[in-house]
Amino acid sequence: EATAEVIDGKKIAQDVRREIAQEVLKMKETVGKVPGLAVVLVGNRTDSATYVRSKKKACEEVGIASFGVTLPEDASEQEVLDAVSKFNDDPSVHGILVQLPLPKHMSEEKVVGAISVEKDVDGFHPLNVGRLALQGRTPLFVSCTPKGCIELLLRSGVEIAGKHAVVIGRSNVVGMPAAILLQGHNATVTTVHSRTPNPAEVTRSADIVIAAVGVAQLVRGDWIKPGAVVIDVGINSVDDPSAKKGYRLVGDVCYAEVAKVASKITPVPGGVGPMTIAMLLQNTLESAKRTFDL
Amino acid sequence: EATAEVIDGKKIAQDVRREIAQEVLKMKETVGKVPGLAVVLVGNRTDSATYVRSKKKACEEVGIASFGVTLPEDASEQEVLDAVSKFNDDPSVHGILVQLPLPKHMSEEKVVGAISVEKDVDGFHPLNVGRLALQGRTPLFVSCTPKGCIELLLRSGVEIAGKHAVVIGRSNVVGMPAAILLQGHNATVTTVHSRTPNPAEVTRSADIVIAAVGVAQLVRGDWIKPGAVVIDVGINSVDDPSAKKGYRLVGDVCYAEVAKVASKITPVPGGVGPMTIAMLLQNTLESAKRTFDL
Ligand SMILES: NC(=O)C1=CN([C@@H]2O[C@H](COP(=O)(O)OP(=O)(O)OC[C@H]3O[C@@H](n4cnc5c(N)ncnc54)[C@H](OP(=O)(O)O)[C@@H]3O)[C@@H](O)[C@H]2O)C=CC1
Ligand SMILES: NC(=O)C1=CN([C@@H]2O[C@H](COP(=O)(O)OP(=O)(O)OC[C@H]3O[C@@H](n4cnc5c(N)ncnc54)[C@H](OP(=O)(O)O)[C@@H]3O)[C@@H](O)[C@H]2O)C=CC1
Repeated sequence: EATAEVIDGKKIAQDVRREIAQEVLKMKETVGKVPGLAVVLVGNRTDSATYVRSKKKACEEVGIASFGVTLPEDASEQEVLDAVSKFNDDPSVHGILVQLPLPKHMSEEKVVGAISVEKDVDGFHPLNVGRLALQGRTPLFVSCTPKGCIELLLRSGVEIAGKHAVVIGRSNVVGMPAAILLQGHNATVTTVHSRTPNPAEVTRSADIVIAAVGVAQLVRGDWIKPGAVVIDVGINSVDDPSAKKGYRLVGDVCYAEVAKVASKITPVPGGVGPMTIAMLLQNTLESAKRTFDL
Repeated sequence: EATAEVIDGKKIAQDVRREIAQEVLKMKETVGKVPGLAVVLVGNRTDSATYVRSKKKACEEVGIASFGVTLPEDASEQEVLDAVSKFNDDPSVHGILVQLPLPKHMSEEKVVGAISVEKDVDGFHPLNVGRLALQGRTPLFVSCTPKGCIELLLRSGVEIAGKHAVVIGRSNVVGMPAAILLQGHNATVTTVHSRTPNPAEVTRSADIVIAAVGVAQLVRGDWIKPGAVVIDVGINSVDDPSAKKGYRLVGDVCYAEVAKVASKITPVPGGVGPMTIAMLLQNTLESAKRTFDL
């Protein structure tokens, strides 16, 4: 009964990674160097360790050098700042990323703010956000997940200009930059958040929906205008006794219902997730190209 | 026939200025100092000279010290940068403002970017814009005109949270920061721009409209939902043989029509205009208070 075309994020991310691998190879041939990504991990959260491992693996696959330091849970803020500072000064590192969340006893704002703007591949530095928001300015880096959402739209042939886009969620990491990027592509953008009294009604007016809420299957079939394109950023685990692990991952969109109404939709997993890492690699590559004047 | 209550920007701006004057007096008494605003004017445009004069006059009226330098039209970029730099280093100056537009042979981005973030009372620095866009961060300064629009809403008792707001225009100076501010006050915000195919329809869904377009009387009566609140930022001069000067100023809103539909509306002139200068004084005061730890 589902009519929506599935936007295959896994496949598109593979395409992007193949392109990156080629560019890295070319860089190696022309300047004899490769891009480098450094990851700072503090503490022993298993989920964080998993993310960091998959980022390193993704680097290796495209020929990006990966550097990393793991500090104990009880490391001092100064030790973390020192680790960041070392990578700031290291010319073989073009991107630095501090895996969040950090232990409670240190300031995320301070640690993330210590990353040099030129190596801020996560795009979280206020200067990069300001340049993103300002017309006529270009940020050095755009936050990976929202950048991945736009890339999915573009590579799926979705026209953005002149369309009404609704972004559900306004977080610093996803919703806010996604809205700015869509507006930069000349969509008319509305941002829905937890204080919006009528989210279903507003969303129903959208040609393009990006859901980044963190509420499992919030967006139902009747929130969607027939033919709209739906990008589901959410990753939520819900109990599922029939699954091996006892849970499964679902998005912020009720896929079964929305796939019957939308014209295109991203699945979870296999939609936005793989694009986030691909964009991290792309940001690292771009940073290296800037460094080498390529 | 008009039913809308007029939001009297001139009177509200006077209230704000009175409050500022009192705070300046208190500052003088407690720390023996007053806030200082420096204005850099390049060239001899009569409109720019008029703006600068009225800013100086407004400073005097509230007890803010005003500094200024006027450079000739053919000044070099370096000379302008030097003037800015001198004010950056001057401890009696808490706000610096370069009157725009600058002559074509110099880079606005470079000159405005040379103003110290701590004295950027126009709020144009990318770092201030980034902090404005980021939740949990606070900009040192917010751009005066959009800040004035919000102040008009708040001081007129308009509730913003939970309302749908439409901002027409997305410029760095007005539209974009106005949208961010409204969202910060928990409105659900849509930004309309020149690539929006159906601006009337979108605007008609708004409880609050801020028009910052630069097109005389674009917003007609049938763009407005009955009872909506309308803030008209536009200042456009249109030919008027019956006027003494041969022209008159009108807003981006067709006042005669919209005043019959809206619940509240700002006039042009006497709406947003006076608030812009009042917010400049307020930003300068706040900067001085920060300097003196008050
Ligand atoms: N695929 C990927 O690579 C990534 C996936 N994610 C996933 O995306 C989702 C969002 O992440 P993130 O942006 O970091 O989350 P945040 O919790 O930081 O932000 C959630 C946003 O959703 C809004 N919101 C919450 N509840 C509702 C509601 N009922 N109706 C409307 N809006 C609501 C909040 O509004 P308010 O501001 O008013 O509180 C907030 O703006 C999560 O599921 C996360 O796991 C995140 C990053 C990367
Ligand atoms: N009261 C005061 O103190 C101040 C008043 N003003 C006045 O406010 C107005 C706007 O100023 P400013 O923001 O600097 O102007 P800009 O020219 O920088 O921006 C105008 C914006 O309006 C959009 N726009 C243009 N035409 C249309 C249309 N037909 N339909 C929908 N959107 C349209 C443009 O879209 P796009 O981005 O697609 O081009 C752009 O985003 C002017 O009249 C100006 O004089 C400005 C500053 C201070």
